[in-house]
Amino acid sequence: MTTPADTSGAGMPAGSVPLTSVPQDAPVDRATAAARRVVEALLLTDRANANLERVAEELNGIAEHLEQHAPAVRDRMVDMWGGEGVTRHDPVTGLENAIALPLIVYGLPDGSVRGETTVTIPYQGPPGCVHGGVSALLLDHTLGVANMWAGRDGMTAQLNVRYHRPTPLFEPLQINGRQESVDGRKIRTTGDIRTAEGEVCVSVEGLFVDKKVPRPR
Amino acid sequence: MTTPADTSGAGMPAGSVPLTSVPQDAPVDRATAAARRVVEALLLTDRANANLERVAEELNGIAEHLEQHAPAVRDRMVDMWGGEGVTRHDPVTGLENAIALPLIVYGLPDGSVRGETTVTIPYQGPPGCVHGGVSALLLDHTLGVANMWAGRDGMTAQLNVRYHRPTPLFEPLQINGRQESVDGRKIRTTGDIRTAEGEVCVSVEGLFVDKKVPRPR
Repeated sequence: MTTPADTSGAGMPAGSVPLTSVPQDAPVDRATAAARRVVEALLLTDRANANLERVAEELNGIAEHLEQHAPAVRDRMVDMWGGEGVTRHDPVTGLENAIALPLIVYGLPDGSVRGETTVTIPYQGPPGCVHGGVSALLLDHTLGVANMWAGRDGMTAQLNVRYHRPTPLFEPLQINGRQESVDGRKIRTTGDIRTAEGEVCVSVEGLFVDKKVPRPR
Repeated sequence: MTTPADTSGAGMPAGSVPLTSVPQDAPVDRATAAARRVVEALLLTDRANANLERVAEELNGIAEHLEQHAPAVRDRMVDMWGGEGVTRHDPVTGLENAIALPLIVYGLPDGSVRGETTVTIPYQGPPGCVHGGVSALLLDHTLGVANMWAGRDGMTAQLNVRYHRPTPLFEPLQINGRQESVDGRKIRTTGDIRTAEGEVCVSVEGLFVDKKVPRPR
């Protein structure tokens, strides 16, 4: 995994390393970033003045081109789940998934993991706030990465999410995770979402079980 | 709220009514549906054979057009949070949000709510399965709708999610929610995600507090 200059982990403690996919100067990354821009702009544009008929036509044209070059889903999934592809398609950190923020999660020398992000309109729940379910999504994924960083991971069995205060859109947020204990196949992991001032907006306790769904081959 | 023929709630009990946004024959709905198609096709297409350079350029061109016609975010948010717009932009049911599946949640005569959906590649967690955090997102939102249907809603204070078995992609799923009790300002609501055979994949208990973030005006 290479680390381009623009994802140097600025702001992370010295010795931190990215554990999820980092932007590459690749056409698929640029196309996905552009798709994210379209998703947001569709929510923000003036419904009366933008030419949404033409936009619909153009987007369908692009989709047709991409679909014409798509292998069978089954074959594509084998590719997705091989090698470095693994961290590039998920809905939280996947640089190739326009639904993903994308969050970049770093492994810290103290054994915890951290991502920093600013969440915008597509992820809105209450007015001006991050959707509570989106916070759960970001935390579930971050706890999974924390387990990988600790060397023992598995599937989510239980997630207890507590909402302490509304999580603001448009402000820098810190997403933290840490594996707390391993007892047989049971893994306990905690995390939180904080504002730049360190106020905890959401906290989570996760129970993971050390088992896996087999990868497609 | 109008109900076009293609969202008649087929499969729902008689007397069910849609509580979230339903597709309209509107340019913004068509453009957003096309954007969803692009998001999925970007994940599925052959990275070597599709012309992703050109796709990136075209998507950026579309984003520029939409952005040029976007009012200030603050003004747009006032519009989003007024009248029927309220259920059209969220990341679960929003017909104008390409991140949303979109799920249509129906209010059932027995007081519960239900949505039916088939989840695909952009929402993948483990191979071939729905991301655990996406399940939490779908359930959090569905519990919120269940509270509205019961006539008393609020903000999520706590969400306890249990994962009983992997939730499959590509298969019809049922998302259920029901308000269980109200005690002062505390609202307790439960829900689950089931396969078409009725197997519970994920269950949730939510605690909501009857308070609101003010709407932008």
